[in-house]
Amino acid sequence: MIAVIQCKDQVGLVATISNVLAAEQLNITSLREHVDPIENRFFIRIEVDKEVPKAMLEAKLRSLLPPEAIVAVNPRTEKKIIVLVTREYHCLSDILVRHHFKTLGASVQHVIGNYPMLEDICQRFEVPFSHISHQDLPKEVFEQKIMDVLLNHQPDYIVLAKFMRILSPSFVTAFSSHIINIHHSFLPAFAGANPYRQAFERGVKLIGATAHFVTDQLDEGPIIAQQIIPVTHSFTAADMVKAGKEIETSVLARALRLVFDDRVLVYKNKTVVFE
Amino acid sequence: MIAVIQCKDQVGLVATISNVLAAEQLNITSLREHVDPIENRFFIRIEVDKEVPKAMLEAKLRSLLPPEAIVAVNPRTEKKIIVLVTREYHCLSDILVRHHFKTLGASVQHVIGNYPMLEDICQRFEVPFSHISHQDLPKEVFEQKIMDVLLNHQPDYIVLAKFMRILSPSFVTAFSSHIINIHHSFLPAFAGANPYRQAFERGVKLIGATAHFVTDQLDEGPIIAQQIIPVTHSFTAADMVKAGKEIETSVLARALRLVFDDRVLVYKNKTVVFE
Amino acid sequence: MIAVIQCKDQVGLVATISNVLAAEQLNITSLREHVDPIENRFFIRIEVDKEVPKAMLEAKLRSLLPPEAIVAVNPRTEKKIIVLVTREYHCLSDILVRHHFKTLGASVQHVIGNYPMLEDICQRFEVPFSHISHQDLPKEVFEQKIMDVLLNHQPDYIVLAKFMRILSPSFVTAFSSHIINIHHSFLPAFAGANPYRQAFERGVKLIGATAHFVTDQLDEGPIIAQQIIPVTHSFTAADMVKAGKEIETSVLARALRLVFDDRVLVYKNKTVVFE
Amino acid sequence: MIAVIQCKDQVGLVATISNVLAAEQLNITSLREHVDPIENRFFIRIEVDKEVPKAMLEAKLRSLLPPEAIVAVNPRTEKKIIVLVTREYHCLSDILVRHHFKTLGASVQHVIGNYPMLEDICQRFEVPFSHISHQDLPKEVFEQKIMDVLLNHQPDYIVLAKFMRILSPSFVTAFSSHIINIHHSFLPAFAGANPYRQAFERGVKLIGATAHFVTDQLDEGPIIAQQIIPVTHSFTAADMVKAGKEIETSVLARALRLVFDDRVLVYKNKTVVFE
Repeated sequence: MIAVIQCKDQVGLVATISNVLAAEQLNITSLREHVDPIENRFFIRIEVDKEVPKAMLEAKLRSLLPPEAIVAVNPRTEKKIIVLVTREYHCLSDILVRHHFKTLGASVQHVIGNYPMLEDICQRFEVPFSHISHQDLPKEVFEQKIMDVLLNHQPDYIVLAKFMRILSPSFVTAFSSHIINIHHSFLPAFAGANPYRQAFERGVKLIGATAHFVTDQLDEGPIIAQQIIPVTHSFTAADMVKAGKEIETSVLARALRLVFDDRVLVYKNKTVVFE
Repeated sequence: MIAVIQCKDQVGLVATISNVLAAEQLNITSLREHVDPIENRFFIRIEVDKEVPKAMLEAKLRSLLPPEAIVAVNPRTEKKIIVLVTREYHCLSDILVRHHFKTLGASVQHVIGNYPMLEDICQRFEVPFSHISHQDLPKEVFEQKIMDVLLNHQPDYIVLAKFMRILSPSFVTAFSSHIINIHHSFLPAFAGANPYRQAFERGVKLIGATAHFVTDQLDEGPIIAQQIIPVTHSFTAADMVKAGKEIETSVLARALRLVFDDRVLVYKNKTVVFE
Repeated sequence: MIAVIQCKDQVGLVATISNVLAAEQLNITSLREHVDPIENRFFIRIEVDKEVPKAMLEAKLRSLLPPEAIVAVNPRTEKKIIVLVTREYHCLSDILVRHHFKTLGASVQHVIGNYPMLEDICQRFEVPFSHISHQDLPKEVFEQKIMDVLLNHQPDYIVLAKFMRILSPSFVTAFSSHIINIHHSFLPAFAGANPYRQAFERGVKLIGATAHFVTDQLDEGPIIAQQIIPVTHSFTAADMVKAGKEIETSVLARALRLVFDDRVLVYKNKTVVFE
Repeated sequence: MIAVIQCKDQVGLVATISNVLAAEQLNITSLREHVDPIENRFFIRIEVDKEVPKAMLEAKLRSLLPPEAIVAVNPRTEKKIIVLVTREYHCLSDILVRHHFKTLGASVQHVIGNYPMLEDICQRFEVPFSHISHQDLPKEVFEQKIMDVLLNHQPDYIVLAKFMRILSPSFVTAFSSHIINIHHSFLPAFAGANPYRQAFERGVKLIGATAHFVTDQLDEGPIIAQQIIPVTHSFTAADMVKAGKEIETSVLARALRLVFDDRVLVYKNKTVVFE
């Protein structure tokens, strides 16, 4: 069982929480705590060795913590997700394979593509796919169609696995801190479109990818994970795109594992990642 | 102030410890806990925001923890070290520079070399150097001479910065868990002598280095840190040695930082590293 | 068009080869050359900007090079491979996805499993699968059955994607330098069975994987690629296996890309990799 | 002996060059060639096994290559450098140690600081230091004083080892492609001042450093080498500065090794690095 809590910092929070757990005869097998001194914010993730009723333990913790505390006990181990894609297969395929072999830590309920070509790979893994084209549609109509699918499923997270449309602030706000995007650069370098072309023209020696929560500020949301790979003068812009796909797949997989394992806490524009 | 504790695991240890700290009005700013379920062993490192008398707090904690608990409160922030070297300058120079600019987290009290050539660099940084040759001496006499210097200084740690003599079990036991060695390979690959030659002949694509505590089992002590760098077919054995020196310097610096910052707990043949 | 050549070293080889290319009005767009001074061996890989008849160019080059020279001009860009598996899905799935989307640089002709459970994933990608059990069969009969499939397809390479049976020297010799294996450790550390268990017990801080050509010396063949990932005290042996699968998938994919792109030359127990 | 050449690309350049070398009975032990198809530019680096008179070989090569070819044969193996610093010791100390033990591949002729505090470490290694303050001086006077020292020494390269003043375009142009800077970020992310503060506020998970040639466009010069290290939520801005110093030292050392070993060719805003 896992408990994840954040609240305003004060003396005695760990004692308060651990006393509750000890009273339930729960043994803490792993504990990570962090205080952000600038924000005066307390973050904690605790793994214990036994199960007790989730609602009871949450209630006991909430009754002793500051009222604004965010307390989540025993989040279900398998999350539910919806994946949004455009045309590129690499991140989606990786997610589908892990889903299929039950190593994703989440269940893919549905895939939505604004182009039709990734329906085939979804069908091969018996995952429902909806083609919702953005063409000839006002943005609000396009997004409402996506929203209809989402509301039907009540997913824990929405994963943008190379979804190349910019979502409107109202959409993003509706799923605040629950939309995960993979951006094809080492943010904040090369924000915006065509980062590999920019990287090629700048002659960089590393390229990267960034997984982050989506906010209404494009490419500015809280970063979950980043990785890089070396490139050389011999890479064309197309080679950089190809190398980038490897790192995009890898960093998104890592970010999803961290999120689904309840290791990522969000506060304002940053994450606390208890790896 | 930092508290580092290890003991047999049981329910309620975090509560016990955090209650003591809360009673002293100490706010926990960072906490890492780990339980080794196979060894049934509890490890914790806590940073708090204020200072209270070390002896008082240690006594309070010990009185409430199992009798075999190892409790260290407020370890002095600047450790004292003795460095043993042979002929290679790279690790020693890095340590001396950081010592000189007070960024090592430790003070180098003395350097002992079984060859004389590194005396010069020590003198440049006004660090005392003793040349204690192993030649024509029985091992026990050689080691007794080293021991005499050590006992004179009562260092917290002995750092083998490319010291190419094997210390006897009795010497090692006398400073158990307090001797840190840099081994020029990614242990356990290429244990023993000439690891770069072995790596070259095997045609590996990565070489590494390992910083570990020394035990009476050669190259078998608890590992603190390891790093690797890529090599290619174009590397001669000499090139591998040269590349290896970079990684040796870097991994030893990292291990020392972790140890001096009280982030490394040792139990049996392993370390817990709270980075 | 790509030319890959190796032979005994002597003065003038680059001139000889580049004169032939210049006479054909071929412009060299990328050239890598390496001389192994210990083996007195010359290796070269040349990319040129146009196509000329393969047989003609090979014949011209051979006529001017030492008789023992190994000359391969314009190797077909899409290789043919057979994949051997046991029970683990991760490397196979990655290969199947890349094959399906035509980014593998090779075509998977057939998959052979000594257990039946990976047939399902092959069927999803319409790749033929044969279940050839090793149980109750003498090794030579088991291997003859595999051999029959191989001879039927004449693959360029055989990929052991977590195939957990040891092939006999006679089998290996029959496909010398054409069998690629992924080994679940950073060789030569933890050769043999259960490397993650060994790594866990040793308390290492990095684990790795090695892709290599198979020879009749178990785990001793020429290394193509190696990678590592950091692990910590918090990893159980099972966590190390899980982390290891990520790195196995990644390093095998990288090795295959290098081999299929004609960037790996083998001589004795080592590879020259022109990345 | 090493030959480094760049010129407009055309068919037959490798043949032309290798014929000259073969006629001199020079055996090529390592060759790297690259063609930039967009710029139609040819780059080559050749190591041969013997020495012949530099001027003779350069003349022969030039006579057969396009007139605009840049040909450098047998660059002296030990370069001469001047180091410019401000207040931070880490890059300078690393350079001084390598200089002292003759592993830098270059000789430090002089160090110039716009503050006085690094004179002490230079004196310890018997390297001349000039304190040239920028305070109360017009930029052109400040730079002229530096220029006077430079002209006195005729260095091959000027190394900005955490020199925190922006050099004027006229100064930079006078030493075009011969000034190497270490920038404290993974360019182009966080160009300009205070990159660690920017990185902290953005909540990145990696920080980096970039070694590049200086041009009159601030932070826009050709990149030689880049590296990154992971950071976490637990890093304060000060921790990021500290971690950044490690990576700055490392990446500058690597860039200098590459440049001093004649492995870096510059064309327009990019480098070709033959590692």
